[in-house]
Amino acid sequence: MAAMPEDAVVRRFVALSRSVPAKLSHLAVGIGDDAALLTPTRGQQVLTCDWFLEGTHFLRNVHPPDSVGWKCLARALSDIAAMGGTPRVFLLSLALPESLTGGWLDEFVVGLSRASSTYGCALAGGDTTRSETVLISVSVIGDVQRRKGLLRSGARPGDLIYVSGTLGEAEAGLRKLRLHRKGEDESVTAQLSGTCRNVRSQSSSLRKHLYPEPRLKIGQWLTDTHVGSSAMDLSDGLSTDLARLCAASGVGAVIDAARLPISGGTIAGLNQGERAERLGLALNGGDDYELLFTVSRSQSHLVPEQIAGVTLSAVGQITARRTILLRDGSKTTALGPRGWDPFARAT
Amino acid sequence: MAAMPEDAVVRRFVALSRSVPAKLSHLAVGIGDDAALLTPTRGQQVLTCDWFLEGTHFLRNVHPPDSVGWKCLARALSDIAAMGGTPRVFLLSLALPESLTGGWLDEFVVGLSRASSTYGCALAGGDTTRSETVLISVSVIGDVQRRKGLLRSGARPGDLIYVSGTLGEAEAGLRKLRLHRKGEDESVTAQLSGTCRNVRSQSSSLRKHLYPEPRLKIGQWLTDTHVGSSAMDLSDGLSTDLARLCAASGVGAVIDAARLPISGGTIAGLNQGERAERLGLALNGGDDYELLFTVSRSQSHLVPEQIAGVTLSAVGQITARRTILLRDGSKTTALGPRGWDPFARAT
Repeated sequence: MAAMPEDAVVRRFVALSRSVPAKLSHLAVGIGDDAALLTPTRGQQVLTCDWFLEGTHFLRNVHPPDSVGWKCLARALSDIAAMGGTPRVFLLSLALPESLTGGWLDEFVVGLSRASSTYGCALAGGDTTRSETVLISVSVIGDVQRRKGLLRSGARPGDLIYVSGTLGEAEAGLRKLRLHRKGEDESVTAQLSGTCRNVRSQSSSLRKHLYPEPRLKIGQWLTDTHVGSSAMDLSDGLSTDLARLCAASGVGAVIDAARLPISGGTIAGLNQGERAERLGLALNGGDDYELLFTVSRSQSHLVPEQIAGVTLSAVGQITARRTILLRDGSKTTALGPRGWDPFARAT
Repeated sequence: MAAMPEDAVVRRFVALSRSVPAKLSHLAVGIGDDAALLTPTRGQQVLTCDWFLEGTHFLRNVHPPDSVGWKCLARALSDIAAMGGTPRVFLLSLALPESLTGGWLDEFVVGLSRASSTYGCALAGGDTTRSETVLISVSVIGDVQRRKGLLRSGARPGDLIYVSGTLGEAEAGLRKLRLHRKGEDESVTAQLSGTCRNVRSQSSSLRKHLYPEPRLKIGQWLTDTHVGSSAMDLSDGLSTDLARLCAASGVGAVIDAARLPISGGTIAGLNQGERAERLGLALNGGDDYELLFTVSRSQSHLVPEQIAGVTLSAVGQITARRTILLRDGSKTTALGPRGWDPFARAT
């Protein structure tokens, strides 16, 4: 195979960088120079970066390349949503094997481009190099009206705890993909072919795993109205992420199992086996990219049932006592952090 | 070995993030939330990101961890220097093996912290995860007075071409390290032990390879005085990078071999073998992180001999004809891009 110089790979991204008009991104100089030039707008800037690594966050022989492109940006945008910000531009660090600089890279760019234009976040620059596996790091710069950033540290005892959408679906989608990989779920094969063109034909769990949608409008509503007292995004699972929010706020929480929103409703009415499985997924499943936020009791009547078509559910309450508890009917137990931790798998 | 949770790794970086005062970095919220909050200052923002990967950019058994920490930030800052910018904050994506989360990480943080405080660039946030090799991506956000960004595209026929410092030293340092690795250069062993404490005892080529110094003050002088017509940093070697600057400006160039600044002077007076080797290093050696810039002939008298102790040398001239030439005495030959290209090594 002929060598592909770095400059040729960079050229593939120049078209992508133009998918968001400069008057929206406020980008004065984009790809092609030593660095990009951005004209800052209002308020404060929101900055975040996120890994997306083959073998850790996705599998090359399982995940369609356009899903990799969509998701590497979408998960970083989820951090911007959690701060109530509006994304402006992103930087892409991409390392990949020589053999993927053809069709794989084309499909990757299709997914990334779709996320970029869907959320109005322009590619400002990046760095590309060669590696044995696909390595991606995405940095996003957004803005938020000054002093309105939604922090993890603002939760107070008595506040109600909300989550957006449903919980555990992305993890269920990942399990489907794993069965598919073992040849045990044929239905997935058809759903994966030509993925970027017929996303709507996929099951909702598969779609949520492959093409998560950052809850930017919900975060923006929480800051615009001053209704949110704290927020974060659910990337590693509710049990792990809620513990982080509570630690930052110096509070505890009690979660009501019966109120957790899962695909199709709640766990009420399910048989015991299914109930335990779905509850585990909702509490510990990663990659949902829903928002977890708190609202003072006196303002809770202002929270609508839905924002931009996504349901908001009150699932518990912040407590002064610094423990995280799960109330399941008459039983209350400690809720340990059992979500995803990249360093915790080895012993 | 006990598992080290991600949160514990993050805590190692919180002290580092405080090595630059918030009143300098304009950081309102740093590490610990979903994203950082930055208060933009004057003018435009300069954005860049850079890979620093084990096996590609450094070798774990050769490069001291504090050099890895210093260099991953310094090379990204070099892009900011090339735009005439002042760095403010950086984001760190770090993936590493479990076994390196002890002493290796400590030394890495020492080097990174030293670069952060030396150049006034605060750690604003990051993402850490586990991987088999060390993976680093650094994004830097700086600022520059509006419409003063130094671009690659501003070179005009007749402009003089300058470089800062000396060329080829970092590549010479790398060669020393390679000999050392094969057990063929014992002098390096002593110089590598306790590196972060006695940098000055190292040879200049080794120091330049391990602890490159981004030319921020030179870039800032070029924008503040409006003297520079174009600029970029030399990361892949003069022959490759000059071709990029000329392509962006739609011009050509002729470089005068006798004027190229190398350690100890110029190639004039060297014997034929040494002359060829040093000329090759100066033209094609990577990792120098010196600045390449152009100045109109009418303004060239304004360029001082040194800025911040670093010599500036006129090494050639921009031409209307779009070829890159090397003039060596009475001989003029085409100068092909023979610097570092991560995708060009495979065939």
